[in-house]
Amino acid sequence: MNFCNLKGMLKVKDLDIATGGTKVVLINEKDARALDIHHMDRVEVNKGKKTITAIVDIAESAKAVPAGKIGLFEEVLEALKVKNNDVVCISNAPKPESLTHIKNKLDGKELTYEETACLVKDIVDEKLSMIELTSYVAANYTLGMTRQETLFLTKAMINTGNVLKHKTKIVADLHSIGGVPGNRTTMIVIPIIISAGITIPKTSSRAITSPAGTADTMEVFCPVSVPMSKVKSLLNTVGGFILWGGSINLAPADEKIIRVESPLSIDPEGQMLASILAKKASVGATHLIMELPVGKDVKLKNLKEAHHLKEEFEYLCKQLGIKINVLVTNSEEPIGNGIGPVLEAIDVLKVLQNFKEAPQDLRCKSLEMAGILFELVGKTKNGNGRELAKQILDSGQAYKTFLKMVKAQGGPIPDIKKLKPGKHSFDVLSTKTGRIKDIDNKAIAKIARIAGAPKDKHSGIYLYKHMGDKITKGEKLFTIYANSNIKLNYAKQANKQLTSYII
Amino acid sequence: MNFCNLKGMLKVKDLDIATGGTKVVLINEKDARALDIHHMDRVEVNKGKKTITAIVDIAESAKAVPAGKIGLFEEVLEALKVKNNDVVCISNAPKPESLTHIKNKLDGKELTYEETACLVKDIVDEKLSMIELTSYVAANYTLGMTRQETLFLTKAMINTGNVLKHKTKIVADLHSIGGVPGNRTTMIVIPIIISAGITIPKTSSRAITSPAGTADTMEVFCPVSVPMSKVKSLLNTVGGFILWGGSINLAPADEKIIRVESPLSIDPEGQMLASILAKKASVGATHLIMELPVGKDVKLKNLKEAHHLKEEFEYLCKQLGIKINVLVTNSEEPIGNGIGPVLEAIDVLKVLQNFKEAPQDLRCKSLEMAGILFELVGKTKNGNGRELAKQILDSGQAYKTFLKMVKAQGGPIPDIKKLKPGKHSFDVLSTKTGRIKDIDNKAIAKIARIAGAPKDKHSGIYLYKHMGDKITKGEKLFTIYANSNIKLNYAKQANKQLTSYII
Repeated sequence: MNFCNLKGMLKVKDLDIATGGTKVVLINEKDARALDIHHMDRVEVNKGKKTITAIVDIAESAKAVPAGKIGLFEEVLEALKVKNNDVVCISNAPKPESLTHIKNKLDGKELTYEETACLVKDIVDEKLSMIELTSYVAANYTLGMTRQETLFLTKAMINTGNVLKHKTKIVADLHSIGGVPGNRTTMIVIPIIISAGITIPKTSSRAITSPAGTADTMEVFCPVSVPMSKVKSLLNTVGGFILWGGSINLAPADEKIIRVESPLSIDPEGQMLASILAKKASVGATHLIMELPVGKDVKLKNLKEAHHLKEEFEYLCKQLGIKINVLVTNSEEPIGNGIGPVLEAIDVLKVLQNFKEAPQDLRCKSLEMAGILFELVGKTKNGNGRELAKQILDSGQAYKTFLKMVKAQGGPIPDIKKLKPGKHSFDVLSTKTGRIKDIDNKAIAKIARIAGAPKDKHSGIYLYKHMGDKITKGEKLFTIYANSNIKLNYAKQANKQLTSYII
Repeated sequence: MNFCNLKGMLKVKDLDIATGGTKVVLINEKDARALDIHHMDRVEVNKGKKTITAIVDIAESAKAVPAGKIGLFEEVLEALKVKNNDVVCISNAPKPESLTHIKNKLDGKELTYEETACLVKDIVDEKLSMIELTSYVAANYTLGMTRQETLFLTKAMINTGNVLKHKTKIVADLHSIGGVPGNRTTMIVIPIIISAGITIPKTSSRAITSPAGTADTMEVFCPVSVPMSKVKSLLNTVGGFILWGGSINLAPADEKIIRVESPLSIDPEGQMLASILAKKASVGATHLIMELPVGKDVKLKNLKEAHHLKEEFEYLCKQLGIKINVLVTNSEEPIGNGIGPVLEAIDVLKVLQNFKEAPQDLRCKSLEMAGILFELVGKTKNGNGRELAKQILDSGQAYKTFLKMVKAQGGPIPDIKKLKPGKHSFDVLSTKTGRIKDIDNKAIAKIARIAGAPKDKHSGIYLYKHMGDKITKGEKLFTIYANSNIKLNYAKQANKQLTSYII
């Protein structure tokens, strides 16, 4: 059908709401009819030199938007620089080309690189509605993606974001998929690796459903968002960093896609692989350790799933020119004693400063990971990596490097004495005598979050007991910390409803 | 994970917008964090004895919704009977069970009747978000539906709406899939069938993308929405009706599903079959004529598609106890001369009143359809149906029945002289001499809609030429009618941009 473009002049109604995501405009059904615009059509909205494309939502009542008016949300008002009662011009806009590619994928066709790149660009530019994006994700989930499609998606995601350039030949990186609370090995491994003169530009996530991401905990010490210019100087002067990935705009398509995946927890394997590897390729990684924890409370439930993923990672990394070592690990309980940014930061400092009371599980795991990374990049022979890591940690060199990193990222000199958990606390005591049979990672995470973590840095949980430990009735299992009595009470409520320890 | 339910008290902010569809509430990210509620989670909102379940949208700025407040749209304000600054209580709500069924469908499992019924009920009750519903539709599209699943969906759709009961053994019905503009055969067939003493409870649609649905044109004569009590009396006193399907609440899940199908025009075959047959079964049809028009401007493009659908309809109707006759027809140009409610109503009256200038294509097609229906229900022997239909029409009996139908539905006596198209008109002249090679149904429909059809009953197009007709330069091709000069100008603009006739 031919494209027929009518123009209408409408008065702006400021809806006084911010939406985020795709741009939407509300018009009255009478105007929609006159202009032959339907629900979910795209329109161009123009004022002076500024034009935006938005998706139409049709208001059936005059209360929402009367005829002759157009309801605009904050993002659109901002983009067009218009205010209440300004007049804008609207007209039909063609549908984005990527809709054809989505339809093709739904019809079982394999997408080419060019089609995937067009689609990813439209996702990044917020040109697709939730329905359209969901259709793409659902098609990837139900029909699967070929290795070729996954590789194309990875490359398209890399190409729509920033890519770091390096002067060194070797750039190391490490990643863990869907891990357990309190796993702050990264903050110990990175300074060990940098101490050995190896570049490691580590981007980490903030917590979404957990009580702290590595970025949240690092932020206890220093900023984790810096401008791109500073990123380069961190690489040149320190040789690495721990920054929040979201601040560097690496593979930005990823977070847009995640929005439609979460309600049904559908994460098509190809998309998950592309999302992770696009970020690793974007930081310029040449050598990568990938940890796949397997356990009942983590993403991967069995070894079969883990071994399949291992093969896929290995194939894709070969295509991307990244040397990878995939470690399938067993993961059953929290690592370290602190849960929540400050409590985890204390654990990290204790390990880096070689305190006797440092959590040994965190120390051991960190040395192991660092050792394997040394071996992968060829710093030591196989079997000697852990020993080098231990020397660097025990000598205090890793701690010195950590201080240098914190300073370079803009933080003050860390002082473990000044790191205090929230003022309001509550001790959870054991109601039985026996041995700890199981710890529910998700219950622990939920209580810590309700207490205020990760946003309230001082909130969280301190664990006294790990799996297999003996406990007597009335002995402390853990302490909940919060910044306010209100949040502590919420967390106490949650603790009553959940079973976090099985004795 | 255990379900942990925290309660929070928030003050209402009236957002002064109606949404339609799923209930959504906006809360500030600070409150969301305190209550551990995430974007797209479900919450119960309670005030006094009233409680509703809504999906959470998280406001990141205080401008949208400040901490301590909850932004409510009209539907929720109405349902809870609350106003600005009232205090409501919110708490986490469990996810609807149907999400498990959607996930299973995405994972390739075949849904049972009970699972489908649970899902359809949640769709009707607006409990699913766009993302969730889209995922279900996309899974049906990409993975297909077994005949069993289609049958279950049909039954679930029937059971979530009204079902008409009849005293007669035979209940006739007819349906046409994705037809051409101006096809008003239904309004002629129904009175012919009723004249022969056969019950035919016809529900029709309003136009969505066309210039008039049968319901829009019938409405020129009388109301097409009546209360359920009146539906029964129409069946008892007249033996049938032409009503708008939407007013009787038959298989209401359908329109909710269509909302997410339209942006990508994905209409999974099983859903399309279920949607049509659920409505036919809901009116109590025992005998059904199904027309499948094939042509370049209609839904079905080739005979292969049509024959496949024929088989599916036949299988499903057998399971539902409906006797069906599927007609695959050729469809290339508009039927009748009028396009738009009043112009089509004039065509219908001319045929029913046996005027010499009545459009013969409309008359012929109506007699044919009525004849086939007579044969299907066993009113005549095969081959004699058309003759009976012709007798009923020519004798004026069909027109008498039509008058009875209009009166019973609450309309005045029809008067063809009082039916006038819009005051503002524009003649489109031929720029060439030759023969009409092609008419673009979609272009004609678009111009008629922009002129105001179907909402402005008097707006539309009158065609002077059909395919194969001779035309000389300067001769009239068609006239556009509108209620206002503004709309006429819009339609003229559209006419310039579109190619409706090829000569």
